[in-house]
Amino acid sequence: MAAIALVQGASRGLGFEFCRNILRNKDPGAVIATCRNPADATELMNLVGQHPGKITVLKLDVNREDDVKDAAEHVKRVFGKVDLMINSSAMLHPSGKGETSLRDVSAQGIISTLTTNTVGPLIMAKYFAPLLQKGSGAFGLQPPERAKHHAGIIVNITAKVGSIGDNGLGGWYSYRMSKAALNMATRNLSIELGRSRPRVVCVSIHPGTVNTDLSRPYHSNVPKDKLFSPGYSVHCLMGIIESLNIDKTGKAYNWNGSELPW
Amino acid sequence: MAAIALVQGASRGLGFEFCRNILRNKDPGAVIATCRNPADATELMNLVGQHPGKITVLKLDVNREDDVKDAAEHVKRVFGKVDLMINSSAMLHPSGKGETSLRDVSAQGIISTLTTNTVGPLIMAKYFAPLLQKGSGAFGLQPPERAKHHAGIIVNITAKVGSIGDNGLGGWYSYRMSKAALNMATRNLSIELGRSRPRVVCVSIHPGTVNTDLSRPYHSNVPKDKLFSPGYSVHCLMGIIESLNIDKTGKAYNWNGSELPW
Repeated sequence: MAAIALVQGASRGLGFEFCRNILRNKDPGAVIATCRNPADATELMNLVGQHPGKITVLKLDVNREDDVKDAAEHVKRVFGKVDLMINSSAMLHPSGKGETSLRDVSAQGIISTLTTNTVGPLIMAKYFAPLLQKGSGAFGLQPPERAKHHAGIIVNITAKVGSIGDNGLGGWYSYRMSKAALNMATRNLSIELGRSRPRVVCVSIHPGTVNTDLSRPYHSNVPKDKLFSPGYSVHCLMGIIESLNIDKTGKAYNWNGSELPW
Repeated sequence: MAAIALVQGASRGLGFEFCRNILRNKDPGAVIATCRNPADATELMNLVGQHPGKITVLKLDVNREDDVKDAAEHVKRVFGKVDLMINSSAMLHPSGKGETSLRDVSAQGIISTLTTNTVGPLIMAKYFAPLLQKGSGAFGLQPPERAKHHAGIIVNITAKVGSIGDNGLGGWYSYRMSKAALNMATRNLSIELGRSRPRVVCVSIHPGTVNTDLSRPYHSNVPKDKLFSPGYSVHCLMGIIESLNIDKTGKAYNWNGSELPW
């Protein structure tokens, strides 16, 4: 049975790279790629041409609960299961720049950021959890004990700046708060979905500082060897994902596999 | 100069009790009590009658940024400073019950809870920070070194269930996520407002499980000696507040003064 991966936020950046990586390396495997505007997702559509029959693109805006529900119904009908779901889309702030001080903070800015970065992934989990519970454990490393096997894996892309304990610089109020709340969602999901069989593993992973549109305004501040290409970051992250099991659920990991403080 | 405390969410529960406690114990002191509907806040209006000239009630809904801005302008004009601001109002969930599983999760429920519990306190901090920086350090315990003196204190009422590291039970998605994000806001505020003089201390405090409307549906599950009266909880919390200084900023504390994990 083919491994089914669903990548939410697949039109560019890390999400797009996850699709590429999985299509290249997972055999037999298929990818469900969701994005807000498939018509504008040129790179993604090229990928579809290169892997005919192995990638399905679905229009989905995580801010629209009905979109998520409809997508889950479609995936249930066509695939019957999901082995891996990656929540990848995020925004730094509606303005494109994180707040440098309280003066830049606005209720509307925080709420938009929380809605996309935090509420979106949780609503994805709500509707796709039953399909992940039908997963065949095709991603991750199953332990010898059958009772500990997992069916599916949820990966929420978090950020080191979403670690409260690690926060020594401040700023970026909306983004930091959205990722801290997302980490709580990860923890809650790991408990609810890890408690009884079929088990679903749920983790947060920090991809490093990646050369994507989200981080573009800040690239000049990042030493060259710390600014990862999406390809390198996803290579590292897939390594972590393929080593996951139920004992590693409910935690936040750095791109190198080390655990991040909450 | 009188100590000025602003209590946001003062019509009932902990907020009301903070007003009572400060009016009784802080001399010379004055309280600014904010709530959404002063006309319905019978107990608070009685308190005004008992302490003529020492308590000012302001209509303020934290979900309306203009309300917060107007209140800050009024306080600036009349008082010129704030020594202590307590963000007290919170909701468990718009339904009155925390989610017991993913099935109960809705985008609208999470967003409402985040808006009141998380965005509200941060917007309060945005508009009142300049007044807290004008505080005369009337709350807390100033250290001998003048360079370490603080002007004002911000207290965000958090909850133990908002600790990601302490979360062993799951459930209550919206409330837990709102308090985790609030703790990140506390941390960020402590950095921005603690960096240079005049310094403002900012902490999160868990009040214990208190006999209030928020927790009422769950009282039957709480052992009697763990269900605090608002009076007892606020007595403990004022003890913590009066021992705060800049070295204790940026942390989350339990009602007994012990530090909570993020």
